[in-house]
Amino acid sequence: MKPGFAFEILARDGAARSGRLHTPHGVVETPAFLPVATYGAVRGVDAATLESIGAQILLANTYHLHERPGEDAVARLGGLHGFTGWGKPWLTDSGGFQVTSLAGRVRVDEAGVAFASPLDGRRRLLTPERAVEVQEALGADLAVVLDECRPLASGADAELVSRVAMERTLRWAERSQRAHRSKDQALFGIVQGGVSRELRLASARGLAALGFDGYAHGGLGLGESRERRVELVAEAHGVLPAAAPRYLMGLGRPEDLVAGVAAGVDLFDCVVPTRHARHGVLFTREGTLAVRSARFREDPRPPETGCDCPTCARHTRAYIHHCLRANEMLGARLATVHNLRFTLRLMEAARAAIAQGRFAALARAVTESAHPA
Amino acid sequence: MKPGFAFEILARDGAARSGRLHTPHGVVETPAFLPVATYGAVRGVDAATLESIGAQILLANTYHLHERPGEDAVARLGGLHGFTGWGKPWLTDSGGFQVTSLAGRVRVDEAGVAFASPLDGRRRLLTPERAVEVQEALGADLAVVLDECRPLASGADAELVSRVAMERTLRWAERSQRAHRSKDQALFGIVQGGVSRELRLASARGLAALGFDGYAHGGLGLGESRERRVELVAEAHGVLPAAAPRYLMGLGRPEDLVAGVAAGVDLFDCVVPTRHARHGVLFTREGTLAVRSARFREDPRPPETGCDCPTCARHTRAYIHHCLRANEMLGARLATVHNLRFTLRLMEAARAAIAQGRFAALARAVTESAHPA
Repeated sequence: MKPGFAFEILARDGAARSGRLHTPHGVVETPAFLPVATYGAVRGVDAATLESIGAQILLANTYHLHERPGEDAVARLGGLHGFTGWGKPWLTDSGGFQVTSLAGRVRVDEAGVAFASPLDGRRRLLTPERAVEVQEALGADLAVVLDECRPLASGADAELVSRVAMERTLRWAERSQRAHRSKDQALFGIVQGGVSRELRLASARGLAALGFDGYAHGGLGLGESRERRVELVAEAHGVLPAAAPRYLMGLGRPEDLVAGVAAGVDLFDCVVPTRHARHGVLFTREGTLAVRSARFREDPRPPETGCDCPTCARHTRAYIHHCLRANEMLGARLATVHNLRFTLRLMEAARAAIAQGRFAALARAVTESAHPA
Repeated sequence: MKPGFAFEILARDGAARSGRLHTPHGVVETPAFLPVATYGAVRGVDAATLESIGAQILLANTYHLHERPGEDAVARLGGLHGFTGWGKPWLTDSGGFQVTSLAGRVRVDEAGVAFASPLDGRRRLLTPERAVEVQEALGADLAVVLDECRPLASGADAELVSRVAMERTLRWAERSQRAHRSKDQALFGIVQGGVSRELRLASARGLAALGFDGYAHGGLGLGESRERRVELVAEAHGVLPAAAPRYLMGLGRPEDLVAGVAAGVDLFDCVVPTRHARHGVLFTREGTLAVRSARFREDPRPPETGCDCPTCARHTRAYIHHCLRANEMLGARLATVHNLRFTLRLMEAARAAIAQGRFAALARAVTESAHPA
């Protein structure tokens, strides 16, 4: 990795590994979960609280911050660290996923992604070089290359579509690498190739030949089975440099986290813990609770007995039920703090289990509680 | 006052006084400001944070909690203290103000306030006895009698309208007192009488003759001048028992707080600090800032230099501007925490100034900064 960055692997347990990712803004113990702060803010939760529940690194969405307030404003305000008050590590995505999913009239060609801005309707072009430039201005510790994001292809030409996207992503990765200047930012390549083993292996080999600071798995969690996903991730790890950190993008349910860790993933991000919280779905070791349901109206228990989060320390399911039903924004905050702490605590447990050689038992317990018989 | 309650006056400075109000759930240092927790939740701010910024007692709206989740549910969950996780003192209003301002087809007669529920349209009747019963179930430390709330009357019959309402409020106060059973709850009478000196004095004399645990000033802040209001409050204090706590309902701008304290008020509640915050109006010693304004887009300063609140400790005007503009609910929380801390800190300063015999200078400085020349 670049100077100022280092990745130490401290323990292994099967393919799972625990380690420490050093960045210019602090150390991230891995496996780690990154809460999503779309506009540089985790919905309703301040930086001090995120620190207190064990968050180590946040993800911000490049596209949203580019639209508002703009990367130049963020840069003038001290980058993401200074702008948001979260002074610990940040990761930014490339903006490609949001452009593809939110903007109108998207057209992808070799130059990049042309799209109509949802704010003002004007045509814009996101190129690999531009995605790097915006991320450098935002100043995250970890950045990713622009990739071609596609829904899971099906039908006769699925393989061809995936192959074209994968090969283009590889060429874009090379352009991104050439464009990247920042010494204070690590750059991750992104493995693509849909659900084809052959394509994903070719992608991983191509990225490894270019040599990135870390490697992400993109385009997964789009409908394929968990078993298939884990196979694809594990096989790519066979050809990626073992010493580099690995990042599975966009997956964060408890069972997805332990499956990813078991396959050797080091970093995860996902909106599920925070979005579910706002919709009243609470994570517990016994599975999820839909706390808006009438049966929790007078439930005096905390969201999860034994949880050490600030919500469970003094608030009941009945109160969160009431706040969510009454549209009191405190309900979303309390639920979000719990779901994030639940997820961060699961990662702490994973690190401890890997160090003690008992990760498989932890993963089995999590998977069983997520899908009770 | 009732057993379990006591009000000690520790210092006087002119008519201003500082003291300690003992309740079954803790001591309130006065003069005190009560943040408003309409549904038992201050918008976006959890109980632990409220404690950390020096809140001592909260106000909940009886009418809203009666509608949702209902006072019986709150009672079964341990009253407001158990239900909300705020275990320190609570005050509840009578519900009369909300019934009059929110419900449809309101009719007031000697029995009470008949209204159509905004939730289901059914006719309901709020009597003085019912208002006491609901507040006893909610279990606040301090409750108030049902009063007849009227907008500031004008025209030829203004005096008559105010007189009828005042006299009825006095009869309702007596009924409330008879109905009130709880030993763990103090009951406050409410002075009414519009902007008539004669009527408000008659109201205060009538309440004093009945003998309440404390006395509130109702029906003010509805359009009369600050000078007129302060005169009316001060004159009522001339006939109310000096040893009892006094509460000015619904006023909480910095200049209103110091004017009320100067007239001898001990307790205040108001939605202004929290509602203004959600609309991006920040309180500072140099007056208010409309932080959504474009001129704060890249302002790297905290809301108020020198403020000791968690928001000012690590967040900038630029970030709050951004969060509010991007509809990130964190913006409302950060601004609310600051405005509440600003207001609570002002009350701390008032208590210290009274103890040191320099309250008039503090009040003058606050009033001048609120209305810069």
